Amino acid sequence: MMRKLCAEFVGTFWLVLGGCGSAVLAANFGGDGNPLGIGFVGVALAFGLTVLTGAYALGHISGGHFNPAVSVGLWAGGRFPASGLLPYLVAQTLGGAAAALVLFQIASGAAGFAIDGGSAGAFATNGYGELSPGGYSMASAFLCEVVLTAFFLVVIMGATHARAPVGFAPIAIGLALTLIHLISIPVTNTSVNPARSTGVAMLAGGAHVAQLWLFWLAPILGGLIGGVFYKWLGHDRPDLVGNG
Amino acid sequence: MMRKLCAEFVGTFWLVLGGCGSAVLAANFGGDGNPLGIGFVGVALAFGLTVLTGAYALGHISGGHFNPAVSVGLWAGGRFPASGLLPYLVAQTLGGAAAALVLFQIASGAAGFAIDGGSAGAFATNGYGELSPGGYSMASAFLCEVVLTAFFLVVIMGATHARAPVGFAPIAIGLALTLIHLISIPVTNTSVNPARSTGVAMLAGGAHVAQLWLFWLAPILGGLIGGVFYKWLGHDRPDLVGNG
Amino acid sequence: MMRKLCAEFVGTFWLVLGGCGSAVLAANFGGDGNPLGIGFVGVALAFGLTVLTGAYALGHISGGHFNPAVSVGLWAGGRFPASGLLPYLVAQTLGGAAAALVLFQIASGAAGFAIDGGSAGAFATNGYGELSPGGYSMASAFLCEVVLTAFFLVVIMGATHARAPVGFAPIAIGLALTLIHLISIPVTNTSVNPARSTGVAMLAGGAHVAQLWLFWLAPILGGLIGGVFYKWLGHDRPDLVGNG
Amino acid sequence: MMRKLCAEFVGTFWLVLGGCGSAVLAANFGGDGNPLGIGFVGVALAFGLTVLTGAYALGHISGGHFNPAVSVGLWAGGRFPASGLLPYLVAQTLGGAAAALVLFQIASGAAGFAIDGGSAGAFATNGYGELSPGGYSMASAFLCEVVLTAFFLVVIMGATHARAPVGFAPIAIGLALTLIHLISIPVTNTSVNPARSTGVAMLAGGAHVAQLWLFWLAPILGGLIGGVFYKWLGHDRPDLVGNG
Repeated sequence: MMRKLCAEFVGTFWLVLGGCGSAVLAANFGGDGNPLGIGFVGVALAFGLTVLTGAYALGHISGGHFNPAVSVGLWAGGRFPASGLLPYLVAQTLGGAAAALVLFQIASGAAGFAIDGGSAGAFATNGYGELSPGGYSMASAFLCEVVLTAFFLVVIMGATHARAPVGFAPIAIGLALTLIHLISIPVTNTSVNPARSTGVAMLAGGAHVAQLWLFWLAPILGGLIGGVFYKWLGHDRPDLVGNG
Repeated sequence: MMRKLCAEFVGTFWLVLGGCGSAVLAANFGGDGNPLGIGFVGVALAFGLTVLTGAYALGHISGGHFNPAVSVGLWAGGRFPASGLLPYLVAQTLGGAAAALVLFQIASGAAGFAIDGGSAGAFATNGYGELSPGGYSMASAFLCEVVLTAFFLVVIMGATHARAPVGFAPIAIGLALTLIHLISIPVTNTSVNPARSTGVAMLAGGAHVAQLWLFWLAPILGGLIGGVFYKWLGHDRPDLVGNG
Repeated sequence: MMRKLCAEFVGTFWLVLGGCGSAVLAANFGGDGNPLGIGFVGVALAFGLTVLTGAYALGHISGGHFNPAVSVGLWAGGRFPASGLLPYLVAQTLGGAAAALVLFQIASGAAGFAIDGGSAGAFATNGYGELSPGGYSMASAFLCEVVLTAFFLVVIMGATHARAPVGFAPIAIGLALTLIHLISIPVTNTSVNPARSTGVAMLAGGAHVAQLWLFWLAPILGGLIGGVFYKWLGHDRPDLVGNG
Repeated sequence: MMRKLCAEFVGTFWLVLGGCGSAVLAANFGGDGNPLGIGFVGVALAFGLTVLTGAYALGHISGGHFNPAVSVGLWAGGRFPASGLLPYLVAQTLGGAAAALVLFQIASGAAGFAIDGGSAGAFATNGYGELSPGGYSMASAFLCEVVLTAFFLVVIMGATHARAPVGFAPIAIGLALTLIHLISIPVTNTSVNPARSTGVAMLAGGAHVAQLWLFWLAPILGGLIGGVFYKWLGHDRPDLVGNG
């Protein structure tokens, strides 16, 4: 179990360092109008590749969740034991927080760097209303996070099903996260992962922390829906269930 | 059959939510000149990844068509029974329509959102002439949709052929849809899929609905051509045919 | 053999329609400064995906060369019989020319479309000197095409070697073509494929035709070098050679 | 051993030609504000694809390190013999230097080309402080290179572990390098590879050479950390170790 928790810590660290790191350091390089920056496409790709690469490297150790909503969804879908939930969630949240600290350390080495607390997307935080990059309401943000996390679980459960081609799940799952970001960065800066949201919000502080509840509630609700739904759809039988 | 139709509904929902969603929410973020938006490259990637991820997750349940032109083309190519056509087409069209409604719900949470009905590409609609993003004629649009859907079927039939490497078909098929969008978003906003076109056109209304006929006729004609052509080219024999 | 030649014709048609089509229709959508267009990244992706998808769909029929320099290089590397060279080269060149005609038909459906003959990159043509997108000299263009085609053959020979993982070659080869375009679109608009260069040059006419010699000579020379070099490096033995 | 060293030379040549080549020739095509250039996303993709394609083509010959920090990290992780270190490092460094020369030859064929020595990112050099693209301090640069190289080794060791899916390692490893560039081009122009840094710095000269020490020290330190860490995490046993 120690090695599993360590793998979840490292994988979530990688997810936040890579995804939030690309957003903070490279998305808007040189300011608006400079096409050298990687933009939302680059950030979407970075988030997806953290999971793709992390799942190939660590999936055979811990299952490669890196996300509390995924662990909860897999539990709801019958693929993960209840006893693993609390330790996995703690390891994931700590991994995300540690990555936020390292990212802050790197980012603050540029002259004039400051977390623009209270502004949308500051230090790659998630948000709704005034803290949504595109100014989307709380209701839109909630719906968006629930629906996308539910689909994320459908892809995860389906691609790791024993009847799916073997070995391809990290590609499908990682690129599903890229896709989710391509859709929803303007809405919430995209969470679908409470551990990704928590560390950076703590560092940005204030209003960002006050909105954290949504990025725990909505992804976990979506994960539950996706897990339960696919359990029915995939007609899971013990002999047809792959590694979760 | 119920689970198959459900998988087709869910997969087409994902295709429209992801592809049209990225176009509506993220393609032109911040207005012209802002390089943060994902542009046509991001939309092309999103459409392809809906199919790549959906096919890994749901392909082992329903075959992963998510597209009336694909179902018809696979029937023409001898890979799908005629009895499945009507139910599959209904499930796909309903899935696309449901996704358009959910997308509208999310998008309308931004202040000032309105479907700019009657303008090219409004709410990710397909169109020709005045409703073509690049102002392409009806003849160009028709030719483009027929040719690209025919090639889409060639890739689908070829990559799922029993002599093709096992497990890679969702990558080839999904990325073929990305490629098709890289070519043809300026021409028709890219359909090659009547179920993708229908729901968003219904919400945009008026002129967009009046052009829907082309985005049923041309993709299905292209699907028939591609299916019949590959059936000859691939020299299909029952023992050499993979899962469609 | 008929089906093989047909597959090469279709695959090269797809390569030119997709690669040159994305360049002509979508690269610079809306004019300079509009970030919706797919730019060189999108064109690079499109070229690579034509080969990735075409190789999964048609590779088990013809080997999936779609390129005279590849056929010649594979012959030099001992993977393709001399008797196949002439028919393959004719099928590839005809496929590329047919695609150029269809692309012209689609593109000319936009008001004000005209091939800007004599300008760099007109109708996706390759060129050097005044016809190089970035104004590179003939010597730079020649060196660039030779070196990149040689590496293309090394990737093709290596990824289809019997000791390489089975089934992944189309991914490696297609994405190698994407990489090659990411490097060299500014230099020559990237050929590494005489059949890709010929059809579009014929339609653009004049100076573009006069430069075609380089885009036959340099890629084929590079293909020969890459094929011969990898034959030595890969220590090919009959029992270790995969499908070419 | 000769063929292994040759494969490392060729693979590192490809890495520098493709990665640095795309940066020098295509990243900023047409000057600031021109969206045709490939930007940091394109350069990140190019670096990753050099490794993805090189590893499929050459990995079965030499293991496909193409990077002194990788060879050292794999040695620390128990996957590579100490006797191979010196020859591998020499071959990699020579390959990177040779590629820099060929790239200079191609690039200098454009009128007005000159290496802007002493400016950040000149000829794709790595740097910190005044030579960092985003003006990041030496401490930030050092931390960033150590952390990212350590994660690179975790992905490499994990994805080539015998319990990881067979054949996918080049995808995971290549796309990990893309991810690393998406994060850190603004910080150091991204090295994580001393052989990638050396050749281009030699050509740029002066201050660029004076900063080279960091791009040997930090990546190798990171490689050692990653290799030792994964050796513990992956619980390597001789029967569970894949090809390095």
